Amino acid sequence: MTRAGARPSRRVASAPDGGRDPWRSALDPALLRALDAALAALPAGSAIGVALSAGADSAMLALHAAHAARRLGRRLHCFHIHHGLQAGADDWLAQAHRLAGLLGADCHSRRVAVDVDGRGMEAAARDARYAALAGLAAHAGIGHLLLAHHQDDQAETVLLRLLRGTGPLGLAAMRPVTERGGLVWVRPWLDQPRSAILDCARRFEALSGWRPVGDPSNDDGRYARAALRTGLAPVLDARWPAWRRTLARHAGQARELSDWVDEAARADWPGLDPSPDGREFSLAAWRALPAPRQAAALRHWLHALDLRMPTEARLRDWLRQLREVHALGHDRDLRLRHEDAWIVVRRGRVLCVPKTQVE
Amino acid sequence: MTRAGARPSRRVASAPDGGRDPWRSALDPALLRALDAALAALPAGSAIGVALSAGADSAMLALHAAHAARRLGRRLHCFHIHHGLQAGADDWLAQAHRLAGLLGADCHSRRVAVDVDGRGMEAAARDARYAALAGLAAHAGIGHLLLAHHQDDQAETVLLRLLRGTGPLGLAAMRPVTERGGLVWVRPWLDQPRSAILDCARRFEALSGWRPVGDPSNDDGRYARAALRTGLAPVLDARWPAWRRTLARHAGQARELSDWVDEAARADWPGLDPSPDGREFSLAAWRALPAPRQAAALRHWLHALDLRMPTEARLRDWLRQLREVHALGHDRDLRLRHEDAWIVVRRGRVLCVPKTQVE
Repeated sequence: MTRAGARPSRRVASAPDGGRDPWRSALDPALLRALDAALAALPAGSAIGVALSAGADSAMLALHAAHAARRLGRRLHCFHIHHGLQAGADDWLAQAHRLAGLLGADCHSRRVAVDVDGRGMEAAARDARYAALAGLAAHAGIGHLLLAHHQDDQAETVLLRLLRGTGPLGLAAMRPVTERGGLVWVRPWLDQPRSAILDCARRFEALSGWRPVGDPSNDDGRYARAALRTGLAPVLDARWPAWRRTLARHAGQARELSDWVDEAARADWPGLDPSPDGREFSLAAWRALPAPRQAAALRHWLHALDLRMPTEARLRDWLRQLREVHALGHDRDLRLRHEDAWIVVRRGRVLCVPKTQVE
Repeated sequence: MTRAGARPSRRVASAPDGGRDPWRSALDPALLRALDAALAALPAGSAIGVALSAGADSAMLALHAAHAARRLGRRLHCFHIHHGLQAGADDWLAQAHRLAGLLGADCHSRRVAVDVDGRGMEAAARDARYAALAGLAAHAGIGHLLLAHHQDDQAETVLLRLLRGTGPLGLAAMRPVTERGGLVWVRPWLDQPRSAILDCARRFEALSGWRPVGDPSNDDGRYARAALRTGLAPVLDARWPAWRRTLARHAGQARELSDWVDEAARADWPGLDPSPDGREFSLAAWRALPAPRQAAALRHWLHALDLRMPTEARLRDWLRQLREVHALGHDRDLRLRHEDAWIVVRRGRVLCVPKTQVE
């Protein structure tokens, strides 16, 4: 068994390609249907890629993906990230490889060091994990990755974003399909309850003896998501037993709304008298837009310039300043710093200029 | 002191109109500014109306409104609803009249019987209260009513609506100004924290000896809002201390978005090939709209026909059926019941017809 590096380990003895799936009785029909629908929407390819932590969720996604791959005559690749710093990381790695062996899948793994910065441990670990997964998938020549986020994760994300103040469109939470880093990230199970996944994991354990690893940060009150699980979820479960389904549905509705706002922002853009290079537009035309479209127009502009989105708090601050500045930008020298650029107002135009040009 | 009926009781001895406000030192400057801003946006009139339960919130609103009325040379009317069934209702009535006396205000009160139906006690009590308040205000010749809902109420409403599944636009929660039953309902304190109101109530009690009544349903886990206060709020306070401000701000952002969607629905309407009487429109044109605009168009249509809005669950069901029916409405007899009307699909048109015409 290869434990690290991008070379796959293969165990095909117990489950040869094209044969009958030995774990078939562990599968859940609804989970399989949701996965099939997601796979059908992907461009055809020779292989299926799954991000595998070796927790119950991603393990069961790999299990169902192995079944689908076998049926479609495609190869399954599992990608595992080894978080060097965390206790138990070696154990997760071993379990991921062992599961891939049981499923007749390739398993690629990479060790990452989490660089903790101002955004906190959770965000840093997530970014490092996604970058490493993208690298592994690219190395294996796979253009997509399946992620095991489920309805419970989605509901928690909605609640956490509400409490973080991301605004109504931020409650779109996780999207079923996104593109990032040249890779398509697919979450086929955002509408599937975790209880179905756990039932499936129990059946699989009874059949195979393979047991998922538990993530200790789940029980650790230091992290917002863990605080939600230990503090809020028990109260919600008691009084609003359907809260996860309700909040996951809210995410879908917010996503529809968000797509519409994006579409409106694209339609609004030519009316803002933009320069041919897209680096500036008319302040007066922008101010004539209704408030939600002002925010959408700014996001559209930054996205077109390939700049990172500001936090919701920073965006609100910009909106306030751009609404209050004199219409020609004469009353004060408005400069908003963003990454390596400045957003400035000059002669009634909002410009994005490289830092060196204004200092 | 007159305890019931629409005739006012007056006590002017301790605080003659136009004189110095004896309770001035109990006032809170931020609460007063928020009230002044709301009053400035109302049409000029000879009197100010406040809904007064005799709890701390509405009592302090009446206190500040009395100050504003005195300064503006306008009369203050307090409107109190006596909930006949509840223990302590007589006490609240007495306290409301006593407070009005201290403030030199008129106090009108009416007894209502709460008709408990399928929507539950809370909704039934609220509807009965609003109808009675509207009746009292109309009788007194006042076109508006000030309500004491504050930031904490707004934050709770956002969370409760999220948990009830009202969708992203439903999180606009309570609006600062609404029209209903021919009356303008004004909530000047939606951005003011309850802590400021309670501080003010303590100062007022020290000055006057008047103590607000407590609403026993606050501590009663049977009601959703009370469950939120006793179960969720302590956890939120500990981990997300700014949650009330954050969620109240979310409501404001959702309101902007909701106004925009309404505006878009008005703009979309002529494109749906409506009949001159507005009772029907083209199914195909409606289906060509993006999903959030389909919902908005239906709401716009029902509003124009003066029909009640359906619940979010029912609206979603209608959307599904209208999206799935054959484009000409031939494949099945689609009939959606709503109040005393039917929504039907005939020859590619969506119609709203009186019940008698289809049965």
